[in-house]
Amino acid sequence: MSETIESIGEQGLLQLVQQFCPAGVVGDDAAVLPVVADESLVVTTDVLVDRVHFSDRTTPAHSVGWRAIAANLSDLAAMGATPLGVTVGLGLPGDTTVAWVEGLYQGMSDCLAKFGGTIVGGDLVRSSVRTISITAFGQVKPGDVMRRSGAQVGDVIVVTGFHGNSRAGLELLLKPELGSHTELVLAHQYPRPRFDIANKLWGIAHACMDSSDGLADAVLQICRSSQVGAVLDQSQLPIDPVLSKIFPEQSKQWCLYGGEDFELVLCLPENAVPAGCLAIGRIVDGQTVVLMNEFGEAKTLRLDHGFQHFST
Amino acid sequence: MSETIESIGEQGLLQLVQQFCPAGVVGDDAAVLPVVADESLVVTTDVLVDRVHFSDRTTPAHSVGWRAIAANLSDLAAMGATPLGVTVGLGLPGDTTVAWVEGLYQGMSDCLAKFGGTIVGGDLVRSSVRTISITAFGQVKPGDVMRRSGAQVGDVIVVTGFHGNSRAGLELLLKPELGSHTELVLAHQYPRPRFDIANKLWGIAHACMDSSDGLADAVLQICRSSQVGAVLDQSQLPIDPVLSKIFPEQSKQWCLYGGEDFELVLCLPENAVPAGCLAIGRIVDGQTVVLMNEFGEAKTLRLDHGFQHFST
Repeated sequence: MSETIESIGEQGLLQLVQQFCPAGVVGDDAAVLPVVADESLVVTTDVLVDRVHFSDRTTPAHSVGWRAIAANLSDLAAMGATPLGVTVGLGLPGDTTVAWVEGLYQGMSDCLAKFGGTIVGGDLVRSSVRTISITAFGQVKPGDVMRRSGAQVGDVIVVTGFHGNSRAGLELLLKPELGSHTELVLAHQYPRPRFDIANKLWGIAHACMDSSDGLADAVLQICRSSQVGAVLDQSQLPIDPVLSKIFPEQSKQWCLYGGEDFELVLCLPENAVPAGCLAIGRIVDGQTVVLMNEFGEAKTLRLDHGFQHFST
Repeated sequence: MSETIESIGEQGLLQLVQQFCPAGVVGDDAAVLPVVADESLVVTTDVLVDRVHFSDRTTPAHSVGWRAIAANLSDLAAMGATPLGVTVGLGLPGDTTVAWVEGLYQGMSDCLAKFGGTIVGGDLVRSSVRTISITAFGQVKPGDVMRRSGAQVGDVIVVTGFHGNSRAGLELLLKPELGSHTELVLAHQYPRPRFDIANKLWGIAHACMDSSDGLADAVLQICRSSQVGAVLDQSQLPIDPVLSKIFPEQSKQWCLYGGEDFELVLCLPENAVPAGCLAIGRIVDGQTVVLMNEFGEAKTLRLDHGFQHFST
C-alpha cells in the first residue's frame, strides 16, 4: 500500500508542500509580494472538488494540479494580466497518498513554471473530500484591461483555438473502449492559458473572456455584458478536423457547449485579428446570439445549454 | 422545510451572493483592483471545513462567516498590513439552506465592514461537505512589514489580550449544561482582528504573529524563526479572571494551547510596549521556550501541545 498523508503527519505534509514554494515566501502569517507600481491587481479564484471537477478515472494528480492552475491563469490571461502568484488551499482525507499530493504540486509547479507565477501561500486541512481551492493574482496596466463589456457592433468575434477537444478527451478517458487519441486527451488533461495571444492584444481587443464554461457561454456572456447581439457562422465553428472525424455526431454540440478548452473569445476590429485566431462571427445590434447555417437559417443560442427551434 | 440552494438553482444562488459584492467588481473573469503604488501586496488563505472548523452546534452561519473573515484579516494584521479585499470559494451540498448561505455572507460582510476590505470575487461549487475557502489580501509599506523572524534577545513579549476565552466559549457551546457566559461565547463566535494595535506598531515591533493556533505555538514559532529562546512568566499568563473563575482547572492549559483567540503576540523593546498590551515574558538567548513559576521552576513548552516534565 502507498504511504498516506496520515502516516507522515502534518509536519511531514507541510515539508513536502513547502518544497514547491520559493524560499523566503512561507514562514509568516501571510506572504509579502512586491507589486509593479503603476499596475492594477487582478484576482481570480476557483474551487475544484473530487468527483465533481476531477477524478482518478480521468485525471492523474499531475494533471489535476496543472488544470487547477491553468484554469485560474486562463482567467488572468482573459483580463490581459500577467501572473504574479497563487495561493493553494487543500482539503484532503487522511488516506490520500503522499504520491498524489506530490503529483498535484508537481503539476501546479510545472504549469506555473511554463506560464508565470509561483505558489506564495496556502492552507492544508482535513476534509472528507479532496478539495482544491486556488486564488491567482496578476497585474495589468489599467489601460490594458480586457473586459467582457466592451464589444462593439461590427466587431469580429474570434477564438484562439479549436473548441470541443477537451470534452472529447474527457469522453475518451471515461470510455476507454473508444480508443486513444492523444491530442484530444491532452486537450482535457493539459489545457494551456493563452497568454501568447492575450499579451499581444493590450489596447486592441474590445472585449475578451475565456471559454472555460463553453464557447456559446462566452459569446452569450460577452453579449449580455456589452448589450449587443451576435451572429455566429455555423460553417466557421472552430472544430478540430480530428474531432469531426472521431466524434462526427457530437462535434458541433461539444464545440459550443463542451467547456474547459480555456481558449479566449475576443471581439475586435476586423483589421486587428491576430495571427492564429479563427473568426467565427460578428457582433450585431440586438440582444440575441444566433448560429446561422449555410441556408441562412438561424438558431438562437441560450445560456441554458439548449438549442432553440429554428426560426428563419 | 427551509428553502435550499438546490431549489433556487445556480443563477438564484449567484444573484444572492452578488448582493454582498460591490457593484462593478464582479462580471469579468477576474476582479481588477487599484493598489497603492509604494506598498507590497500581502496574501493569506484559509480553508474551513464543516465539522472540522465549524459546526451547526457551535457556530450559526453568521458567526461562521465572521470567523472565516476574522481569521484571515488577523493574519494581515499580524503582518502590519491593511486589508484590500477577499475572495470566497464555497463548496456546498445541494441541501444547504438559502438562509445559511445568506447568514454566512452577512457575517462575512459585517466583519469586512468593521475591519476593512470587500468581497471581490469567488467561486460556488457543489461539494458533499460545506467548505469555505478565503483568500485575503492587503497592502503594507515594505518597511512596515512585521515578521516572525525579527525577535531580539531582551525584547519584551506582549500579547494584545486574554487567551483561552475562545476555547472556553467552544466548551460552553458544546456543553450547554455548563451554563451561559456571553463574554466567553462571543470570544469564540466573534473574534476581532487586532488592527487597532497592529496599526500603531509599524516600524516598532521586532516580531509579530497572531495566536490563531494558540499562545504557546505563537511564541514557539517566533522563537524558532528568530533563533532565540523565551522565558514566560506563569504568574503573567494572560488569563481572563472570568475564565479562571469558571474553568479554574483548564484555564492555564487553554490560555497556552486553546487557540483561535486571534490576538497578536509581539516582541518589542521594553520602552515601546503599547497601551492595552500585556507583558508575558522575555526573549532570551537559546532555543527553548520555558514557562517559569513563582518558585523559579521551569517547564519547557513544545509545539506538540504537551507539557514536558519540570526541569529546574
